[in-house]
Amino acid sequence: MTWVDDPAFGAEHPFGPQTLPYGVVDAGEGPLVAVRVGDHALPLRSIEAALGEELRAVAWAGSLDPLLAAGRTVWTTLRARLRELVTATAAPRGATLLPLTARSEVRTLLPFTVGDYVDFYCSRHHAENVGRMFRPDATNLLMPNWTHLPVGYHGRSGTVIVSGTDVVRPHGQRRGNGGPVFGPTERLDVEAEVGFVCGGPTARRVPIADAADHLFGVALVNDWSARDIQAWEYQPLGPFLGKSFATSIGAWITPLDAFAAARIPVVEPEHPRLDYLVEDQPWGLDLRLEIEWNGTVVSRPRFADMSFSCAQQLAHMTVNGATVRPGDLFASGTVSGPEKEQRGCFLELTWAGREPVTLKDGQTRTFLADGDTVVITATAPGEDGSVVGLAEVAGTVLPAEVT
Amino acid sequence: MTWVDDPAFGAEHPFGPQTLPYGVVDAGEGPLVAVRVGDHALPLRSIEAALGEELRAVAWAGSLDPLLAAGRTVWTTLRARLRELVTATAAPRGATLLPLTARSEVRTLLPFTVGDYVDFYCSRHHAENVGRMFRPDATNLLMPNWTHLPVGYHGRSGTVIVSGTDVVRPHGQRRGNGGPVFGPTERLDVEAEVGFVCGGPTARRVPIADAADHLFGVALVNDWSARDIQAWEYQPLGPFLGKSFATSIGAWITPLDAFAAARIPVVEPEHPRLDYLVEDQPWGLDLRLEIEWNGTVVSRPRFADMSFSCAQQLAHMTVNGATVRPGDLFASGTVSGPEKEQRGCFLELTWAGREPVTLKDGQTRTFLADGDTVVITATAPGEDGSVVGLAEVAGTVLPAEVT
Repeated sequence: MTWVDDPAFGAEHPFGPQTLPYGVVDAGEGPLVAVRVGDHALPLRSIEAALGEELRAVAWAGSLDPLLAAGRTVWTTLRARLRELVTATAAPRGATLLPLTARSEVRTLLPFTVGDYVDFYCSRHHAENVGRMFRPDATNLLMPNWTHLPVGYHGRSGTVIVSGTDVVRPHGQRRGNGGPVFGPTERLDVEAEVGFVCGGPTARRVPIADAADHLFGVALVNDWSARDIQAWEYQPLGPFLGKSFATSIGAWITPLDAFAAARIPVVEPEHPRLDYLVEDQPWGLDLRLEIEWNGTVVSRPRFADMSFSCAQQLAHMTVNGATVRPGDLFASGTVSGPEKEQRGCFLELTWAGREPVTLKDGQTRTFLADGDTVVITATAPGEDGSVVGLAEVAGTVLPAEVT
Repeated sequence: MTWVDDPAFGAEHPFGPQTLPYGVVDAGEGPLVAVRVGDHALPLRSIEAALGEELRAVAWAGSLDPLLAAGRTVWTTLRARLRELVTATAAPRGATLLPLTARSEVRTLLPFTVGDYVDFYCSRHHAENVGRMFRPDATNLLMPNWTHLPVGYHGRSGTVIVSGTDVVRPHGQRRGNGGPVFGPTERLDVEAEVGFVCGGPTARRVPIADAADHLFGVALVNDWSARDIQAWEYQPLGPFLGKSFATSIGAWITPLDAFAAARIPVVEPEHPRLDYLVEDQPWGLDLRLEIEWNGTVVSRPRFADMSFSCAQQLAHMTVNGATVRPGDLFASGTVSGPEKEQRGCFLELTWAGREPVTLKDGQTRTFLADGDTVVITATAPGEDGSVVGLAEVAGTVLPAEVT
């Protein structure tokens, strides 16, 4: 038994000592950098004496920014030290556990300052489904570039919000008869994605061999999408207002090191990869996602079905000389599998609204209704048969504002 | 005569007292917030006594970030006070003038922390020329959305660099025979644009009537582009690595207030605008740009030819509920006019490389060669017949790195 008095803090639980994700909580007295143990937050500040002088700046910060910038050696040292401290039989002096249950006064905050936000498009099933729906007459479901590079684009970092933040139904232009009409979106959707939080020194051209020095951790992302706004605006420069109103990220960033036992190869490519995209070790992750719509699990996408890994995405994103900075965030793209019940967005799941889904309360849905709540969770295999969790990314739709 | 001993500090000069742009300089002892007077920088810290207590935090900052966040009332107060101080006959106590000539040791730095960077596409001539070159068989030169909204996309804020910074020729994938090839771009280009720097309180949904509270100033932007990388990657999610390696911005941000005499209507739209895009006053700007390629002026685009204004762009960008924050930057899109010698990028100017331009040294060019330097400048009419300048945005191409 460890001193952490939390039944959810065990190897069979997703937030046991094998996981130890980082976040920022506010219990009424300002932001505190914390590690999650089961269903509690342990503020690093409360155990600073046990952490030692070199980690003081990280522990006393108001966000994860200094930890992200500190680099891999510090990440490894801190994780090892925390693992030791939280699995000890006696509590370190000062240790405070803050409850994270629904009724708690403890709020979780956006844990870091988002630099650039890039969204990829690396599920073949997702891209092919979109092709089938929107370009049924095309000779190829995929654009010719898709099988050669991780297609991606920049999103709006200023509207990345933490899990639990409500999402207001956005207004925008959409196609109408004889010209565009303006109003609240009628096709509000989710995209279940896996996000990667960058850290370490600012660097140009990060080859796959150096990826681990710049990948701090993993978090679930919901890339909320207004499909009618997107369909009207996106040519030729890509998605803009159909995506930029909100992108939710889980409140707890699970360190990359927690996924050592979950590493698997990505899907075998149909062409040999160009040299800069060749992996020296498997960088795919065996994550299993679940999407709950008002409490009904409507999909179980598997991250193993993705065609490019986070290391390939990072190498591609910087191969032109672009820098990557601590706090940069990139997401995998919608995670969709070959089966209907593995589709990662409602556009695909309801086949553009033509096949409604029935929720357990008997209601049917195509796109999101006001008041709907979507919760995405995920787990991965951990060492010694344990389970590593990714914290939920949840959001509830509020009605459009009166303009 | 004012105390400022600089022949370039007069109403007939682009950086006279009618302009007073802000920047950040380093004369060897760290960053200093400064106002430009002619060809000198006047650090605000050196005249803090004359500015007064309320402007102390702005004057002592290491960037324009606090000034951007301070909001319109402070912007107006500071500009009026500086105008008074720099046009007085006696210097304020402590005033230090740092030379900005080529031989000076004074370096100009990126003056603010770039939040989100959005790049628009609001020159009809540019968009039509691109349509003619790349979709010659299309029935319409423009996508149907183009005449109804300012088309735009998010770029990479982490690679916004200050004028004078060299640009390394980027590597990337481009279309080849039988599959993509990887290597340095063979079609390196510029895009002459006008950038708008946002400030004031973070806000959602900024209507055109409130735009002035969130528009701090104006600067020239060169959106360097690798056309071959862009052509291969951009479908369906828009430009990514073809743009993200470097975006240059002028070192001096000219306050919006300096352009009072330059305000003109944008080009008359072909359809009535949706309500949220209707302007209550002219928000276009009568800016005349010049593009110099290795010292030869190759184009003179006019900003008056743009179809959407900065206020329309800001209103559109936030109409979905997206926030705008101090430090957010958006650019107009390539400024191109109806004449060949008004085209704002070399893709158009050389018609995709088919019509080389001859420089004054007799050399010919299609796209950029290593060692080439491009300098973009602009002026606008100021009050009482004066001229308001936008600081140059300059950059030199370095050879691709060995990989």
